[in-house]
Amino acid sequence: MDMNDRALRDIVVSLGGPANGYPREDGFDIVVASEVMAIFCLATSLEDLKERLGNIIVAYNRDKQPIRARDLDADGAMTVLLKDAFQPNLVQTLEHTPAFVHGGPFANIAHGCNTVVATKAALKLADYVVTEAGFGADLGAEKFIDIKCRKSGLRPSAAVIVATIRALKYHGGADLKTITEEDLGALEKGIVNLRRHIENVRDVYGVPVIVSINNFTSDTQGEVDLLRRLVTDAGAQVVLATHWADGGAGTEDLARAVVELCEQPSEVTFVYPDEASLWEKIEAIATRVYRADEVTASSKVRTQLRELQDMGYGHLPVCIAKTQYSFSTDAALRGAPTGHSLDVREVRLSAGAEFVVVVCGDIMTMPGLPKVPAAQKIDLVDGAVVGLF
Amino acid sequence: MDMNDRALRDIVVSLGGPANGYPREDGFDIVVASEVMAIFCLATSLEDLKERLGNIIVAYNRDKQPIRARDLDADGAMTVLLKDAFQPNLVQTLEHTPAFVHGGPFANIAHGCNTVVATKAALKLADYVVTEAGFGADLGAEKFIDIKCRKSGLRPSAAVIVATIRALKYHGGADLKTITEEDLGALEKGIVNLRRHIENVRDVYGVPVIVSINNFTSDTQGEVDLLRRLVTDAGAQVVLATHWADGGAGTEDLARAVVELCEQPSEVTFVYPDEASLWEKIEAIATRVYRADEVTASSKVRTQLRELQDMGYGHLPVCIAKTQYSFSTDAALRGAPTGHSLDVREVRLSAGAEFVVVVCGDIMTMPGLPKVPAAQKIDLVDGAVVGLF
Amino acid sequence: MDMNDRALRDIVVSLGGPANGYPREDGFDIVVASEVMAIFCLATSLEDLKERLGNIIVAYNRDKQPIRARDLDADGAMTVLLKDAFQPNLVQTLEHTPAFVHGGPFANIAHGCNTVVATKAALKLADYVVTEAGFGADLGAEKFIDIKCRKSGLRPSAAVIVATIRALKYHGGADLKTITEEDLGALEKGIVNLRRHIENVRDVYGVPVIVSINNFTSDTQGEVDLLRRLVTDAGAQVVLATHWADGGAGTEDLARAVVELCEQPSEVTFVYPDEASLWEKIEAIATRVYRADEVTASSKVRTQLRELQDMGYGHLPVCIAKTQYSFSTDAALRGAPTGHSLDVREVRLSAGAEFVVVVCGDIMTMPGLPKVPAAQKIDLVDGAVVGLF
Amino acid sequence: MDMNDRALRDIVVSLGGPANGYPREDGFDIVVASEVMAIFCLATSLEDLKERLGNIIVAYNRDKQPIRARDLDADGAMTVLLKDAFQPNLVQTLEHTPAFVHGGPFANIAHGCNTVVATKAALKLADYVVTEAGFGADLGAEKFIDIKCRKSGLRPSAAVIVATIRALKYHGGADLKTITEEDLGALEKGIVNLRRHIENVRDVYGVPVIVSINNFTSDTQGEVDLLRRLVTDAGAQVVLATHWADGGAGTEDLARAVVELCEQPSEVTFVYPDEASLWEKIEAIATRVYRADEVTASSKVRTQLRELQDMGYGHLPVCIAKTQYSFSTDAALRGAPTGHSLDVREVRLSAGAEFVVVVCGDIMTMPGLPKVPAAQKIDLVDGAVVGLF
Repeated sequence: MDMNDRALRDIVVSLGGPANGYPREDGFDIVVASEVMAIFCLATSLEDLKERLGNIIVAYNRDKQPIRARDLDADGAMTVLLKDAFQPNLVQTLEHTPAFVHGGPFANIAHGCNTVVATKAALKLADYVVTEAGFGADLGAEKFIDIKCRKSGLRPSAAVIVATIRALKYHGGADLKTITEEDLGALEKGIVNLRRHIENVRDVYGVPVIVSINNFTSDTQGEVDLLRRLVTDAGAQVVLATHWADGGAGTEDLARAVVELCEQPSEVTFVYPDEASLWEKIEAIATRVYRADEVTASSKVRTQLRELQDMGYGHLPVCIAKTQYSFSTDAALRGAPTGHSLDVREVRLSAGAEFVVVVCGDIMTMPGLPKVPAAQKIDLVDGAVVGLF
Repeated sequence: MDMNDRALRDIVVSLGGPANGYPREDGFDIVVASEVMAIFCLATSLEDLKERLGNIIVAYNRDKQPIRARDLDADGAMTVLLKDAFQPNLVQTLEHTPAFVHGGPFANIAHGCNTVVATKAALKLADYVVTEAGFGADLGAEKFIDIKCRKSGLRPSAAVIVATIRALKYHGGADLKTITEEDLGALEKGIVNLRRHIENVRDVYGVPVIVSINNFTSDTQGEVDLLRRLVTDAGAQVVLATHWADGGAGTEDLARAVVELCEQPSEVTFVYPDEASLWEKIEAIATRVYRADEVTASSKVRTQLRELQDMGYGHLPVCIAKTQYSFSTDAALRGAPTGHSLDVREVRLSAGAEFVVVVCGDIMTMPGLPKVPAAQKIDLVDGAVVGLF
Repeated sequence: MDMNDRALRDIVVSLGGPANGYPREDGFDIVVASEVMAIFCLATSLEDLKERLGNIIVAYNRDKQPIRARDLDADGAMTVLLKDAFQPNLVQTLEHTPAFVHGGPFANIAHGCNTVVATKAALKLADYVVTEAGFGADLGAEKFIDIKCRKSGLRPSAAVIVATIRALKYHGGADLKTITEEDLGALEKGIVNLRRHIENVRDVYGVPVIVSINNFTSDTQGEVDLLRRLVTDAGAQVVLATHWADGGAGTEDLARAVVELCEQPSEVTFVYPDEASLWEKIEAIATRVYRADEVTASSKVRTQLRELQDMGYGHLPVCIAKTQYSFSTDAALRGAPTGHSLDVREVRLSAGAEFVVVVCGDIMTMPGLPKVPAAQKIDLVDGAVVGLF
Repeated sequence: MDMNDRALRDIVVSLGGPANGYPREDGFDIVVASEVMAIFCLATSLEDLKERLGNIIVAYNRDKQPIRARDLDADGAMTVLLKDAFQPNLVQTLEHTPAFVHGGPFANIAHGCNTVVATKAALKLADYVVTEAGFGADLGAEKFIDIKCRKSGLRPSAAVIVATIRALKYHGGADLKTITEEDLGALEKGIVNLRRHIENVRDVYGVPVIVSINNFTSDTQGEVDLLRRLVTDAGAQVVLATHWADGGAGTEDLARAVVELCEQPSEVTFVYPDEASLWEKIEAIATRVYRADEVTASSKVRTQLRELQDMGYGHLPVCIAKTQYSFSTDAALRGAPTGHSLDVREVRLSAGAEFVVVVCGDIMTMPGLPKVPAAQKIDLVDGAVVGLF
């Protein structure tokens, strides 16, 4: 359903008598939060898509055995529905550069990368392909490596970490209300956050890295200079990008630097091997990427993980759902926290997407809308649509 | 929402805490049952569409004053959403005859006719335009005349009543299980139903009428001969149509007869004048078309009607929602019942569509699905979609 | 549950996951609206009580066969719960007259009379026993005769119809706001209501009748005189009762008149015989007591009645649930309406109470509370409870 | 409501239209889990009871300011309802020893001790008063000291820890299925659990302690001897009690030992002082009593605690709700775990009971019923109730 209404997050359906079915608690998620979107992005062919859709577990019977979409004969029809959507759709930028916009799973509950088929198609058509991994490099990039690359055989030649001065000042303790004012102290303090992302991408994932500063008009020259120095000190190249103002010309420096970086030999390494247990996989990400001291979980969650292991899902990668505002699960812990623990609240098997979602904090699968609906401004004036932007 | 699930008919939403809004009872209707569809079909321009959408009453405040879509600034965005759909879409039959398929409101809760703009566009493009009014001539045709024609200025030159021998046998008391067996007695008894439809269209609505027999293979020659005689006795011309088997050639006779009929002078008359009260309008339809003795209603319903009258909605036409299986509200009363009463259960103002829905029996605004979902048979086999039909 | 909250009328329970059961729509009724209360009042012994409780239909299985309280082994425990309550509890008036207050079912959804065991116990202990039948003589008295007397063998020797001048003025068209002002015209017009009650009790139920005027301070002498004359004209004796002010002394005249009346020979007759069909029983009450012209019902209701007849419940009495404000189902129809129809909306089998409830209008089985909760005034002041009255 | 049905734990009420109120999510708790029960047990007079009932926070307005029972004028009526129940009710044992059974709050969500007024009344009437604190000495006894004693001024002279050999074997790793077989190894291992309880009561709460072995028939002489030795090694006196078999005679030894123990000088000390912050109070219990390493909590919980502190509730004691099966929050961690962390999931202010409930794990406030309802066996046979036990 192409609709977004927080009122539908948590509902009771099939009321009004037996003609409407048996009452049950239910809820709507938006498309990007669904396992179908994750599958769509990881499937390598229509056959693989159908196979994975059929594997989705939709319920458990009274004997606690999974009931899959296939058991309801739904996999065929679902594949038919997605058949045309599965072809990567080619669009172009305002400067006529071709691009695929194809698939977009959340980077918390899912793996946050576009489709495997689009990336592979692009690689056949162009010398250099740029793709995006959602949220911070602890979330999107980790999942890009450990889930998308692992499963598809894709290997990136280089990585661009996009940083903003205001975000780094925030991580250095600056107040959001005064974030646009020059604050060299906060910037210097906040650099620890970026430094860790650089280390993770370069040393943990094994991908050559460059930092692109997404330059805002409120950034002062003093801040830009300081940031350049700090990133250089951290051992990474840094380039200022002004594409938001100058279009393609604003990223020419960056493009050249990336092309050069791609020549550098590299070897992508996963955060954990396939044969590690689910618990070990969580621990590897927690300690190596998030720099937590430990992973904690209730007996119930530990039992669930053990059961998944016993059911033969131990070889799957894990997909950690946590806040994008901190390396820890506490959105208020800025900078580069250490010594924290990663508490696993819940575990969910995505049997079709072929990963185990590890929920570490609140996740929202049906976002709210702004307080003032965008619809209020949209109108038809003299036959022309106004108010869309 | 382009979806149909009986589980959504009657739901409780906004559960799960204040972040999800205030809990309330709600439900989904299918598009064709919505007031938006009725408006879409009656609007004469994009301006009129926006005006009517803005008039939709979505709630009442604590002072029982209506809150309209316009009060929520939703009319502009709704119009934008429907802007392209509002252009009549031209399709063609297998024999390349052009046709508009545009809009389809239910013929019980709404008025059951396609859009005014499509009909008017067709009239500019062709010598003869055929349009359909859903359900029996007591429902669709009455609403076509009293709502669509009254509001748009359209006036039909002739009417075709489509009859089937099996339906007439059913109205004559035949059992559904043996309905395909020859039963001249039941046919002769059931003719009263068709006779009343003929009288209604010709004498009450003032439209020249012809009967087209939608010929089935199970119809015997004896039955066809009898029906011809009975219809002729009823003072109407009758033509056999076999378009289901022979395509356009199968309705050539019918077409010729209709062209001839259109030459006949006629004067369309409404079942009730605008200035009659809402109650008088209901009574007029009940007694003149359904041939009921009286209209009954609880004090609550009578009060509602009086309030609508006081609020200035007395000039609107009424749109009666009742079963299509009988002239009465009792689906089991076949033939041409008289002496019955029309009990009004509920009254709903469609302030945007500009009619008052008068509910006389159960109406279903979110149909169920078959016991075995069609999806079970749909599949993708060697890249081809199978199982759609 | 000894609690009354409109919020509990219509609820969804067993939410929150399988540990809480399967979600379903449910609701609370107050005790007096429950079938248990009706059973309690009609049972003649603890054995009969258990038998009837066991007969209660609590659900239907998938084959639409009834599931009874007995099938859940609940009848024993229910009987144990009611064992002590089943002993008629003797109280006394302020003047030390003994009285049983024992059982109180609603007079719409149930039969509105106290327990059979209390009435029988009283008859063994006293020369004269007075009992009450709730609401008007068309509801409570009809059910007293047709349900309680029919089933228990009890036969009243005389009936007292309690009338108030203000109620009769209301039935004569007076406005509620000026009801306390003298209005001889309205009183004279409203007498038709009382006259019909007198006729029903005396001629239809066959019980010698006397009218007691429940005298208010706002009644004028002119009104009292007029009422006396009008009742006498109607062929009934009339006595003024002032017990609300004078205690027992205020009804001495009435008591003497009743004792005299009891000497009069009489033969109680039921409104319908056991062997009439359920439909005929409804018709008998509708036409003989309510003076309706006809009974109407949807096919669905007619089918239900036929099924109950087929299942062997045709011999049960019917218990009509309708408004107490009119002889008709329309609360606004005052006086003594004729020519109306009784529309049956719904039929419910009370298999334990052994009657068929025939719902003709809205019935409320969980009353609301006053806008200002009585609790607000209740308090403990210096150890004493205040604000109870 | 004196009723227990898991279907009522989690419900949606006020459905069915505005006459039934505004829909909301709600639920029933059993009486012992309500704040009213906690208040009832801590109140020192009817005035204090009314004051505390009035303090209960029932909702928050849109400005997030608390709405109290007093604001709804409910405190007076609530006090009146409890007025008679507030008198300690005297019962007697089979051997005619007087006892008060008065109040019973849960020992997780509430403080788990009987009423202050009953304990004080008993102290005026007897030389020695024995009272009980629910669940383990880490839960009930801690709350008895830190909540009931702190607030009421009561100070115990001695404490009896009741131990069973089977529970200790369970804590030593024994399987529940073979728990009745002699297992000296498990007993020896499990003693750490009892030893910690002894230390807590004696050294942390400062109360002279004795251990009473609740002797089962399955306990072997070897086990009893071993337990005696192990407890003695732990520095505490130990007595075998057989009251379950021998009545009062079976605890004579224990009684003599307790009387002696009461002569010993002692000074009850609280686990934390009033002036510690709420967080410090939780930490004190976690580290001193549960022997956890640390307390963890989400930012949301920490913020809530800070807000409560700011609102002036920092001086209240805390009431920790956790499992009774372990010193930790993980029911599976037997024995005497150390190094664990206490994770605070939720914080609730009991403004009337005057403590802050700190939820550390799942708590159940409406218990389920057995799979086979007890009601199935209850019956009335020849006028006698059977099947109650």
